[in-house]
Amino acid sequence: MEIFYSNNICGDTVILSAEESVHCVRVLRNRKGAGVKVSGGDGNLYNCVVEDDNPSGARLRIISIEGGFGKHDYFLHIAVAPTKNIDRFEWFLEKATEIGVDEITPLLCDHSERKVLKQQRGERVIVAAAKQSLKGAVPVLNPLTGVKDLIARSAGFDGAKFIAYCDSELIGAEGAPVKRIPLMEGVAGAMEKLHVLRTMVLIGPEGDFSLSEIQAAAAAGFLPVSLGESRLRTETAALMSVAVHYMAASAKFLTRG
Amino acid sequence: MEIFYSNNICGDTVILSAEESVHCVRVLRNRKGAGVKVSGGDGNLYNCVVEDDNPSGARLRIISIEGGFGKHDYFLHIAVAPTKNIDRFEWFLEKATEIGVDEITPLLCDHSERKVLKQQRGERVIVAAAKQSLKGAVPVLNPLTGVKDLIARSAGFDGAKFIAYCDSELIGAEGAPVKRIPLMEGVAGAMEKLHVLRTMVLIGPEGDFSLSEIQAAAAAGFLPVSLGESRLRTETAALMSVAVHYMAASAKFLTRG
Repeated sequence: MEIFYSNNICGDTVILSAEESVHCVRVLRNRKGAGVKVSGGDGNLYNCVVEDDNPSGARLRIISIEGGFGKHDYFLHIAVAPTKNIDRFEWFLEKATEIGVDEITPLLCDHSERKVLKQQRGERVIVAAAKQSLKGAVPVLNPLTGVKDLIARSAGFDGAKFIAYCDSELIGAEGAPVKRIPLMEGVAGAMEKLHVLRTMVLIGPEGDFSLSEIQAAAAAGFLPVSLGESRLRTETAALMSVAVHYMAASAKFLTRG
Repeated sequence: MEIFYSNNICGDTVILSAEESVHCVRVLRNRKGAGVKVSGGDGNLYNCVVEDDNPSGARLRIISIEGGFGKHDYFLHIAVAPTKNIDRFEWFLEKATEIGVDEITPLLCDHSERKVLKQQRGERVIVAAAKQSLKGAVPVLNPLTGVKDLIARSAGFDGAKFIAYCDSELIGAEGAPVKRIPLMEGVAGAMEKLHVLRTMVLIGPEGDFSLSEIQAAAAAGFLPVSLGESRLRTETAALMSVAVHYMAASAKFLTRG
């Protein structure tokens, strides 16, 4: 099944972008009267008929709508420092979209190796992955955001909040190091408590979060978590966090022993 | 921490390959008397001293050995059809090694899009990933193997066996379709039964396993599993299978409810 993408939907009319129109009309030869499927990026799949097969801006008429197309049973906002090697970050965007994520915030941290990011390029990767993996919803890619700004803004987030870090040692109120629990355990606990899986996870750069960033997150209610024993790269840790949610949601039979 | 790799270890002497020697001696300037760490690929980390700083074949003397370096608490053999785009398969090799896998068999299937594979190139990706993620053991990469050959050979495997597929419908003895359980559920069940996580997972090509391949696997004791609702690419499905094991092993508190 091939689906197209458009965020230009008005009433019962869908307009495809120039790029999508060429692919739809020229490459796949969908001429006037042909039936095509369009992801609106809004969670819906639109079943359409081609009305105007203009390869620089095809116009389609909506016949029916499938809501919640390719949706997942959790809400996940991953905030992660983009890697120095941009391919690794874009790989994460692709895979996270394919598995299922709702919002991605690239983070600017004290130890960030990458301080600029091409927003549009990242969005293109996400849209392509959403189409390929048949998702009606396209994850939101936020602009590059300072980690402390994000922590401040997260005060209004109605879900569980986690921060994953590696070597730093956060000292608790009693003067002892704060124990990090496995993310999976945190996620299982949140599901038990909230009866819905709605989380935000922070993943630091190659050089880890700074102690002051971890302290700010902990003070704002982020639970310190670990991602197991392996030394994972930034993008692998971020993807593993997505995988934890995907599996926790698809294996609801698992409870805490 | 930088570690080197060598499979040329005899008594208390380690010889580095030409490539590793250049990196150790020329790039990182480890001259005679310097202390260096070497993964033997056998699970051990060897703490060594440079005896001969020859950049075309450095000789090191072993001072001490750390066993089980970077090991994980499961045994996992993933057999997966390599993707048409080789980058995607090599990405899987890298990430699977980073997270933790023991044996990888590239599969030749009825619907395979890739029928040749450069063994040495794959091995290089794996060794690099093992070094980067600080593993003493290097996963075994088997040669490209017909799926039915692998199924026949798996008769002697003393662990749980799974086959993941997408659209095919396997009909059971009673004439009804065989239900696929989530891999996570299968893994949790195997842990309960065997008290150790030791598994083999088969992942098919872009065009899925053929019905005859699925039948052969089921007849040989492979349990049909699914990897959730998302349409995952071959390499993502394979990586998700590794992630399931990694998380199941690191979250032993999870039991079946």
